[in-house]
Order: sequence, then C-alpha cells, then structure tokens
Amino acid sequence: MTRNEAGCKNEPHAGTPNMRYFISHPETAAEEALAGILSLTNVPVRRVDQHSAVVYGENSKRKTKIVIGGGSGHEPLFLGLVGPGLADGAVAGQVFAAPTPDAILAVVQEVGAPEGVLLVYGNYSGDVLNFGVAADDAAKIGVKTAEIRVHDDIASASASEMEDRRGISGDIFVIKVISAAADLGMPFREVLRVGEKINFQTRSLGVASQAATSIDTCRPMFELPDGEMEIGMGLHGEMGVQRSSYEPAKSIVPRMMEMLLADFEQSKLPLSRAAIMINGLGSTTVLELLVISGFVRNFLDRHSIPVVHQVVGEFATSLDMAGFSISISQLDEELEPLLFAKCQSFCYTKR
Amino acid sequence: MTRNEAGCKNEPHAGTPNMRYFISHPETAAEEALAGILSLTNVPVRRVDQHSAVVYGENSKRKTKIVIGGGSGHEPLFLGLVGPGLADGAVAGQVFAAPTPDAILAVVQEVGAPEGVLLVYGNYSGDVLNFGVAADDAAKIGVKTAEIRVHDDIASASASEMEDRRGISGDIFVIKVISAAADLGMPFREVLRVGEKINFQTRSLGVASQAATSIDTCRPMFELPDGEMEIGMGLHGEMGVQRSSYEPAKSIVPRMMEMLLADFEQSKLPLSRAAIMINGLGSTTVLELLVISGFVRNFLDRHSIPVVHQVVGEFATSLDMAGFSISISQLDEELEPLLFAKCQSFCYTKR
Repeated sequence: MTRNEAGCKNEPHAGTPNMRYFISHPETAAEEALAGILSLTNVPVRRVDQHSAVVYGENSKRKTKIVIGGGSGHEPLFLGLVGPGLADGAVAGQVFAAPTPDAILAVVQEVGAPEGVLLVYGNYSGDVLNFGVAADDAAKIGVKTAEIRVHDDIASASASEMEDRRGISGDIFVIKVISAAADLGMPFREVLRVGEKINFQTRSLGVASQAATSIDTCRPMFELPDGEMEIGMGLHGEMGVQRSSYEPAKSIVPRMMEMLLADFEQSKLPLSRAAIMINGLGSTTVLELLVISGFVRNFLDRHSIPVVHQVVGEFATSLDMAGFSISISQLDEELEPLLFAKCQSFCYTKR
Repeated sequence: MTRNEAGCKNEPHAGTPNMRYFISHPETAAEEALAGILSLTNVPVRRVDQHSAVVYGENSKRKTKIVIGGGSGHEPLFLGLVGPGLADGAVAGQVFAAPTPDAILAVVQEVGAPEGVLLVYGNYSGDVLNFGVAADDAAKIGVKTAEIRVHDDIASASASEMEDRRGISGDIFVIKVISAAADLGMPFREVLRVGEKINFQTRSLGVASQAATSIDTCRPMFELPDGEMEIGMGLHGEMGVQRSSYEPAKSIVPRMMEMLLADFEQSKLPLSRAAIMINGLGSTTVLELLVISGFVRNFLDRHSIPVVHQVVGEFATSLDMAGFSISISQLDEELEPLLFAKCQSFCYTKR
C-alpha cells in the first residue's frame, strides 16, 4: 500500500470522505481538532464562542496581550501556543486558510488589552488581509493593535526584501520571545520593538522529500518526482528555490546551514549566539529529526558558533509533508532570557 | 510520488543507500540519532562510552536507579526518557533490535545503585533475553537488579495472559511513575511494587492505516491493502487482531475505547480515574492526533469516567507507520501524584 493511493481512494463509504486522514470531513477538521486541544489536561485554555479559537486568561501582569493565528494543518501551531508565558489567544482558519476577521476580532476582544493587542502571524496574503480587517474593526471599538508578520523563510525572498518573506517555523521563537516580553509588563511599544527585533533575527529554511497530501483532493499538493527533494518550499507547498536529487541529512544539512549563515551575513548580522529549532513537517520520523539535529550541531561546532538552545520536534507542520525546516535565531542579551523564560503549552514548554 | 516508491528506489547514489529516510545508512542510524540526543540543550544527559546509551547523573536522592531500553526506531523512546524525574539511563539497540547485554550492563554500572537497579523495557523476546543476560552479569559483579516488562498492548494476548503481552506506548506512563517513586527515596522493593502496579493498571491499543517502511529494505513492513486498517498491530509490525475498512476517528476511536474498557473490566479493574495518552506512530499528523484526542475524551465523558491527565504527541513511534495508539492508566491515590510529579526530558516534560 502507498499512502497516496489509499488517500485517493474516495469510494462512497459511510462517513469516510477522506481515507488518508483520520478526520470526518475536510470542512470539520478544524472543529474536530479544536475539541482535541480542549481535551488536553496540561493546556489551560478555553474556547471563544463558536470560533476555532482559544484563550488563556491568566497572563495577568501583561499590559500588552498577544493574539496569534493562521490556517489549520500546521498543528501544533497556532492553537497549541496559547498558555502561561505564551500567547493570550489564538485563532485558526480552515486547513491552509486564514482565520476570518470576525473570529480574529472576537479573540482580540476576549483577551482584553490594558494598552493594546499585538497580532502575530505568518506573512501570507490571506492572513495579512484578514488580520488587517480585524485590526481596523478593533480600532473602531477603541482597541489598539499592531501587527508582527513573521518572515523567517529565507527561500521566499531575498534578504533585502525581508518583509516579503513567508513565515514558517520561526513563528515559534518569535511568539515565545514576544510573550515573555509582555510578561515583564513592558509597555506596548517596547513589546512591539522586541517583536520586530526577534522577527528580524530569526531565519529558517525547509526541505521536502514528499509533498503533503491535500485534505480535500487527497492528491499530493505539488509534484515532486521520485528521488528528488525541494529546498525552500513553503508550508502550503509554495515553490522552493532548488530541486536536487535525494540527499541524506549528512549532506543536505550543511548545505542548508551554509545558506542560512550566508543570509545572516547578508543582513550584517553574523550568527554568533544561536537558538536552533529542528522542525518536522509532518511525516518525517523523530529518529530522522534527531539525526538532522546532530548534523546541525556538528556544523555549528565546526564553525565555532555557540548554541545556547537547540530543540527538536514538530512545531509548525504542513499536514503530512515529509521533510523538515531549520530555524535559527541570533540571540543577544535582551532576547536570550526572554527565549529562556518559563512557559507551558501543547506546542512548547520551558521548565 | 508515493513514499514507498521513493523509498524503494535504491539506485546507487553517492552516500544514499536509503532514499526514504534522511539517514546515512541503516547501520549508522542509531549512532546518528544519538548525536542528535546529545545536541539538545534542554536534555542534560551524557553518553556512556561508545554505546548507544545515555545517563543523567543528578537524580541523587534515589536509592533505586532506573535503566530503560529497547530498539531504535521508536523515538523519542527510549533515549528521550532520561532526565530529572525520569530514567537514570537508557540504552538503544539498532533499529527494531534489542540493545546488547554489554551495553545494558555498561549503563547499569554507570548509574550506580545504592540499593539496586530496576530494568524497565517492553516485553519482547529479544529484550527479555538481553536484559536477562545483563541482569545475570550485573549479579556477578554484585549489582542487584529487578525487571519490569511493560505489557500494555491488549491486542497481543488475553487479559488472563497479561504477562505475554507486548509493551507499546504504555511504556511512558510506567517509566514516569516508577521514576517518581524512586525520587521519593523509596526502597528498592517498594519501587518495584509500584512499578508492577502501574504496569498492571496500564492498557493500550493501536491501529495502523499504513505499515512502516523498513529502514533496510525500504519496503512496507507488512501488507495492508488500500483502504484497510489493522487494529492491534505491534510496534514492529506484529500481526494485530482485526482488519477492517478504513474508518475516521469518529468511529474507530469509540470501537477501540470499548475494547480497552472491556479489558479493564475483565481484570476486575473498572476504569474510574483515567490518565490518557494519544500516541502518534510516525506519519499521522498532529491535526489528526488532536482530532483523535477529542473523540477519546468525548467517549469518556459519555461514560462518566473522570480524566485527570490527557496528553497528545509522538511518544513511542514505529518509524513512519501511519496510525496511533491510545494508552490508559487507571490511577489511584498512590499513582496519581507520581504521574504528576515534575520531570524533564526530550520525550516528556511535566512542569
């Protein structure tokens, strides 16, 4: 059996419109996943009205609240990043679709905001549009907002056009640091400044060896011939920058790391104190993610770049895509303690 | 592209004997993964000699030390469960192969043992044999040991032959509880008693919708026709108990939960206070694991069974098998605080 054959065999069958995934229907997947988030006993969140959205109400020292969001299909992003030391609220769209402006607005209102609400999301046109509409609506009812569009994917635009880049797994470090800044009781403008800094200082690059299976059509979301891999493809299958024959971690990792280091250099921000995340995109095994992590560290050791934080897991997935992304944040005296502050959520916990 | 076609296309290609996985070679996979464990900054472990084994040396109050182990390919098990509040040492074999007696013995010696070392592992013949040899060798050098063979998989033998059952994702709850008991400074016999109790009170059941891809042959490890799923298959592809047409979580979860509840009843241990783990087997998405978790909770709510602990993630995988397992521990006043005690590791962290 091959997964795509199974996934595409959509014969009429009671209650099974999609045989690749253990979901009832593509249109109910986000709703069913939300019930899952609420079933977790270590995640103290509650739902917002009828929306695919959750809030955590106890980050009480914050003058600035953090609301994040994006499409479903990237779990544990975004709903899995709400909790102590992390976001105050998160809102999810349908699979690979931006959340609606009314859902975003509902979460903004729910979290309240002594000084204002920072909206943090990956830089995709649908999200930019809908968060923008929600921000305008919030202004009309007297709630101040500002936006951080995470743009860590170095494959999606050049370093000189950084604001055009997409957001991928770097989302996690950006959200973590901004939230810790809010916990310090920093004023709104300061949290925004820290957010812009960690956003600028975070770069990521991904590689896929198998496209994700569409939740709707059950077909691969892009064409990738046998034995080829694509560097720089996006979290929704957007086109990457290089196609090449298959390579094991031992050779693909150094190549990706060279590209990441060159990108930091290009922004006059040489990497000298690194936080590293190895992120599985969906069906890549934990065994492999560890193998990849070892080669990432090996590369950094050979380049004498200190690593103060290195984690492995599935943080920002693309359904069942096979592949991984490497995210790197250049830390400094201000960012490092914020990244290390305690937090608790489904996606990310610091003890 | 389908994953198995890609995985099987083993054409001669510099350094790439295995195109399904990002590893250099099946025989070096465990070694490469070990380097990955050592690269993690939030996991304070060190390697034992040249072995695929790690120890954490700071669980200093323990009179009883905990050593765990098993084959690679189940990551984050086993090496990922060493750390504060968890195992003192872990040893990994090659992919799906038991660790060698000399590697086990080296870890037993490394952790030291004021009163003795508890060896905890899944109940598979290779592990039983090799841990047994290591235990004999330990006795010869004056180190007392005892063994807990985790036997949570209800599909692998009847409730009346529980000691013949295989160990699957229930390993995690068993290791967690035993380790917390050791942290209380309990004497050896008491830790063993608690271990046998949580082992008896933990039951699991898995379902696969796609076999794992062999790391050696790059072929599916068992035959599973398109659109079928298998309930009760083992973590290495051992035969299950039911083949059926594909079903979404909404219908397969209640069926599995009925089987689990019936098994508890059969042992005169009705489920009344539950700890739940939803474990992804490899390539099942986080989206799906959440969906599954929601239906597990829905079932327990409908049966008025209190859930005090429910977690979702990849804990005990089978390479890239698609599917999941549900583990349930029946808690009591003694076990519950042990399950809730703080711990930190790659696999499992309680804050």
